[in-house]
Amino acid sequence: MNAYIAVPLAASVVAILVAFALVQWILRQDQGNEAMQKVARAIFQGAQAFLRRQYFTIGLLAIVGAIVVGLLLAILSGSAQSLGGITPFGIAWRTSVAFLIGAGCSALSGLIGMNVAVRSNSRVANAASRGLGQALLVGLRGGAVTGFLVIALSLLGVTLVYVIYSAIGPQSIDNTPVLIVGFGFGASFVALFAQLGGGIYTKAADVGADLVGKVEKDMPEDDPRNPAVIADLVGDNVGDCAGRGADLFESTAAENIGAMILGASVYETLGRNNVGWIIFPLVVVGLGIIASLIGLFAVRGTGLREPGADSKRDAGAIAMGRLNVGYYVTAAFAVLGMVGASYLLLGDKWYYFAAAGVVGILNSVAFVYITQYYTSGKWRPVREIAEASKTGPATNIIAGLAVGFENTALPVLAICASLGLAYFIGTLAGIERPGTGIISTGGIYATAAATMGMLMSAAYILAMDSFGPITDNAGGIVEMSNAPEEVRVVTDALDSVGNTTKALTKGYGIGSAALAAFLLFSAYLDVLQKNFKGAGTAYSVNLANPPVFIAALIGAMLIFLFSSLAIRAVGRAAQGMIEEVRRQIKANPKILTGEVDPDYAACVDISTRSALRQMVIPGVMVVVTPILIGLILGPEAAAGFLMVGTIAGILMALVMNNGGGAWDNAKKYIEAGFLKDENGVPLKKGTEAHKAGVVGDTVGDPFKDTAGPSLHVVIKLLSTVTLVLAPLFIFFHPQ
Amino acid sequence: MNAYIAVPLAASVVAILVAFALVQWILRQDQGNEAMQKVARAIFQGAQAFLRRQYFTIGLLAIVGAIVVGLLLAILSGSAQSLGGITPFGIAWRTSVAFLIGAGCSALSGLIGMNVAVRSNSRVANAASRGLGQALLVGLRGGAVTGFLVIALSLLGVTLVYVIYSAIGPQSIDNTPVLIVGFGFGASFVALFAQLGGGIYTKAADVGADLVGKVEKDMPEDDPRNPAVIADLVGDNVGDCAGRGADLFESTAAENIGAMILGASVYETLGRNNVGWIIFPLVVVGLGIIASLIGLFAVRGTGLREPGADSKRDAGAIAMGRLNVGYYVTAAFAVLGMVGASYLLLGDKWYYFAAAGVVGILNSVAFVYITQYYTSGKWRPVREIAEASKTGPATNIIAGLAVGFENTALPVLAICASLGLAYFIGTLAGIERPGTGIISTGGIYATAAATMGMLMSAAYILAMDSFGPITDNAGGIVEMSNAPEEVRVVTDALDSVGNTTKALTKGYGIGSAALAAFLLFSAYLDVLQKNFKGAGTAYSVNLANPPVFIAALIGAMLIFLFSSLAIRAVGRAAQGMIEEVRRQIKANPKILTGEVDPDYAACVDISTRSALRQMVIPGVMVVVTPILIGLILGPEAAAGFLMVGTIAGILMALVMNNGGGAWDNAKKYIEAGFLKDENGVPLKKGTEAHKAGVVGDTVGDPFKDTAGPSLHVVIKLLSTVTLVLAPLFIFFHPQ
Repeated sequence: MNAYIAVPLAASVVAILVAFALVQWILRQDQGNEAMQKVARAIFQGAQAFLRRQYFTIGLLAIVGAIVVGLLLAILSGSAQSLGGITPFGIAWRTSVAFLIGAGCSALSGLIGMNVAVRSNSRVANAASRGLGQALLVGLRGGAVTGFLVIALSLLGVTLVYVIYSAIGPQSIDNTPVLIVGFGFGASFVALFAQLGGGIYTKAADVGADLVGKVEKDMPEDDPRNPAVIADLVGDNVGDCAGRGADLFESTAAENIGAMILGASVYETLGRNNVGWIIFPLVVVGLGIIASLIGLFAVRGTGLREPGADSKRDAGAIAMGRLNVGYYVTAAFAVLGMVGASYLLLGDKWYYFAAAGVVGILNSVAFVYITQYYTSGKWRPVREIAEASKTGPATNIIAGLAVGFENTALPVLAICASLGLAYFIGTLAGIERPGTGIISTGGIYATAAATMGMLMSAAYILAMDSFGPITDNAGGIVEMSNAPEEVRVVTDALDSVGNTTKALTKGYGIGSAALAAFLLFSAYLDVLQKNFKGAGTAYSVNLANPPVFIAALIGAMLIFLFSSLAIRAVGRAAQGMIEEVRRQIKANPKILTGEVDPDYAACVDISTRSALRQMVIPGVMVVVTPILIGLILGPEAAAGFLMVGTIAGILMALVMNNGGGAWDNAKKYIEAGFLKDENGVPLKKGTEAHKAGVVGDTVGDPFKDTAGPSLHVVIKLLSTVTLVLAPLFIFFHPQ
Repeated sequence: MNAYIAVPLAASVVAILVAFALVQWILRQDQGNEAMQKVARAIFQGAQAFLRRQYFTIGLLAIVGAIVVGLLLAILSGSAQSLGGITPFGIAWRTSVAFLIGAGCSALSGLIGMNVAVRSNSRVANAASRGLGQALLVGLRGGAVTGFLVIALSLLGVTLVYVIYSAIGPQSIDNTPVLIVGFGFGASFVALFAQLGGGIYTKAADVGADLVGKVEKDMPEDDPRNPAVIADLVGDNVGDCAGRGADLFESTAAENIGAMILGASVYETLGRNNVGWIIFPLVVVGLGIIASLIGLFAVRGTGLREPGADSKRDAGAIAMGRLNVGYYVTAAFAVLGMVGASYLLLGDKWYYFAAAGVVGILNSVAFVYITQYYTSGKWRPVREIAEASKTGPATNIIAGLAVGFENTALPVLAICASLGLAYFIGTLAGIERPGTGIISTGGIYATAAATMGMLMSAAYILAMDSFGPITDNAGGIVEMSNAPEEVRVVTDALDSVGNTTKALTKGYGIGSAALAAFLLFSAYLDVLQKNFKGAGTAYSVNLANPPVFIAALIGAMLIFLFSSLAIRAVGRAAQGMIEEVRRQIKANPKILTGEVDPDYAACVDISTRSALRQMVIPGVMVVVTPILIGLILGPEAAAGFLMVGTIAGILMALVMNNGGGAWDNAKKYIEAGFLKDENGVPLKKGTEAHKAGVVGDTVGDPFKDTAGPSLHVVIKLLSTVTLVLAPLFIFFHPQ
């Protein structure tokens, strides 16, 4: 073992300590008046109830998953000679244990983060009365608890499992990374259900609340008379906070493990004398956490100009500027960390890989800009959708779908450029697996470095993301507790900033998922190569081979089918919600006059039950299909399935995320009065154009918050499943 | 040359003669009263004006294309040794000439078919007053002119070019098919612009007419007071008739050529003594035309029960039943033809390939059923969308998109099953290219046989398709000429049948495009294999190679971007149309009272100009991108691009076609009174649910009639472009 393994261990422990210090700091903040606390309590209880039931279901599924995978590997995988004498049973228990640890850590970080988020919201609402700066700080630090816990626990888990499995042997160091893939599989297993269930929950509530509240009854957002309002506020937490947390937990874990597998290849190729190649990813992510911590504390809450009632937009821009400072500080220190880690660990050609890592960091910046272009009201795409709203909902939808499909182009080109450039730089380092010809080990490792570079800012990005639901909730609490106008200005401004940061995180998530996926199936191929009988030639995934082509076609189809199920789940759950809200309002007219509180719990219950019921089938389908493909059609077909499924997944996730985001902001653009009729009169709320905008926003909801983010997870899950079960596929289909 | 080459020549000449006889028969029919003729004349003039300008633009583009491709091949492709001593210049001129002949034949068949269709419509309208049977017969035979001309000209063109190029040499017979790929490229080039331009035209007019007419002014369909009504009726012809004709012209040509290339491989592998392997596809398609002719004349117009005013649905079902008889007769004779052709041409293992061909015929039947399931009001998908309309346009759209994404599953499984089964059957025949290992030549040839089997009924299917716009137009003419109610019942019934047949043709089109694409890139790989220096090993398309993966990602992205441009083109053009219609109605209130005719020509002009302007960029993009990929990243990357682009194209086309069709029929389901509120009262026209249904229908319009059908063509175009330019890619990137 290399002494630098202390870096990820120390970094994650520091991050966890900081997270707990932040919790103490937040709990010391004033939690607001009784009215605020009452709303916050309702949100807290709703979130608790859902998460308890959700993680119970996920836990059951995970235990079944761990047992099935373990049994399959133990009984059927034969002897995996390439792992240095370890028995099938040895592979099996290590995989299952890693799976359960991964699943457990993921669930733990999600639960703690959520608990803090739902405690931060009323404190942000209260801090808002003391000014923008205070509220910004409380919101960001509340989000940072999730952000740092998630990334630190993920890193700590992978590092510890790696250290322990290395220590107990009997396999050699370079065969250890493959044994901890189970950790990534467990994490993605939990992430899939957490993101999908959370996504269904949040959008069923949101769509239901909006369609009756805003469209039929002309209520404002977060009106306490709306029976679905608490469910909506709970949804922000379980979808954006817990769901995205699990997503990035899993990204970090899977990318670390995939990169370590590729590192093991380089280690072996270069004569097994520098473990640095294997632990480089862990060190880089550790330094990324430190960079993110510096970025976090670079965000200051003082010296902000306080906004007047007429300058929400300015206030938002100022607050966003402060958050951006933190991001750029993080990126700058990430570059330093990447260069340092490469220099210390990667031998005399380190600078090639440092350069590739910087390409990854630049890719993350590119994704942030591209996402803003497609989802902000400042540029053509959102304006085009708003303009199309003038001729009604149909043209709004057509324009939105056109933007959604179009927005695949720039991100794909960015991914291709990053991958191509990193690969090219890596080939210059001249590290070749002897005799295999086609694939340059150095080139592939450089793409891994780029992926790690992109991932370095994950903790900060995730803090900004969790900032979103906290400020969104704070806005709701302020609205429902009848706080004065100047407080609303602050929370409205932060809420709009939160929307931007949520969109950015999704862009970041898909960009890193795309790189991660390439890395993971490179790792899968590496495993196949090692077990390939045709020594001296490269293992190839030949799309011209009919079974491979058929598997590829099914892989892409699975993505479409999954998207369909996710969208439909929201549609159905929302219809149930709409009927309940209508029923309550009809049954008791005093709800509308505000004399009687509606039955919030009934709506929370509908969301909870629909989400739990409808997350199982699509989730299980995504886990089982790659296994069937691998068993029936073989490991090469599984690779084709994986790659083409991944490509389709990247594209659909982009369509869903940014299309949905553009619809959302087109509506906001109209509400802000920027869309004008031929006489220059703004077409605000109440006009037909605005109603068309609301339709588009509603359609975009399941796109951007259910199907899209779940697809990030699906992409990586496909890779981890195939990677874990590769020995099985090879056993049944020996080359 | 083999004597059986006479079969395709004779069959296509017979079909052309029959088509002209049908023209005479149609022109002898009474063309209706003066009011009907006036409307028909307006449609005729609008269609003429558009097609003249459209084909002028396409002609210019085609000439430029032919010259550029010829020059590229002549100057840069080096010596293509594998074609038996033919010079680069020799390849170049043969390709360019074939390109121009293919483009010319495609344009010719489109123009003649259109001319007949716009002459048939008023005759169907008039025949409707003599009963359902007469109208059905005139409509189908009008459509048959397009159907048989298109397929016959395509077959005749390919056969003649093949015979002539074989005769002039110097290359051997088995190298000839590659030289006529230019014909397929020319045909797909024309088809792309014909389908895309026609699709934009028709939907700009349709969406514009509906959104102002139906939604804002409460007019019925085809109301003469609507300024966009003539443009809408013209659109049916240029989109469905000319566009789909060019699509299937190109399918037939490209599939014939691709199958011949694969046949040449088998011919060579088995010792060059049976040309039957090469001409089998031509003979099969020739026999398919004969089968389709028998099917056509099996449809009788007599003995039909005449519908009363309250039984439109019954009348439609009866008429559809008659058309189905023709289809089943065609399919039965196709099986006979397939078995016969295999027996006569494919040596002693003929029965394997006959069986694979029957798999293809069964696949076409499966597609017909699956398409009906997803787009007919009788089953769950359409009803689900209709139900979702109760809660407004947003849930209607969400449900429609869910259905659209979901409906990729069954067709993909059908394609996978057909391909897999045909391939498996073919491998049993035991024809292996010596030493190449992976790819079974017999298996691949069997997939070609399946493709040809699917294509045998193309002429009949296309006749049913062109029946659609003719009866749609007839309905419009009846409506606008104030014909009596009993006539309307007949035309309404036929119109709804036409909608079904149009949907079926699109399903058939995508199914055959998917098979064709697999066949074409098998042909492309065959060309690469022949030029592959690594003799004795199979040429493979390795997705794990980063440039191949990058190309694949770009291939899928291109499909999304193209869809975006196609949808957006309709949205923009429709907005222009909406503004013009509103302007006319506002400028002259007498239009609404019916005292003054609106300015139809102004709307026709808007559709024409938008379509021509907006078809060029997406079209050129699709042609140029594969060329750039091949030149920059090499032939293997081009293959990856092609395959993954094809997979994405198949899926998106399914989403677009059937999603759009489902939305359309959900609206019709509501209009027919099948959707009921909680008290059992039908939610018909005028209700909010119906308005939501109209929004969905409008969104579906550019899906199903612009982007979807254009994607069929794109899929095949990508293959023909790469196939034509393969020598160039190989020259720049020798293995």
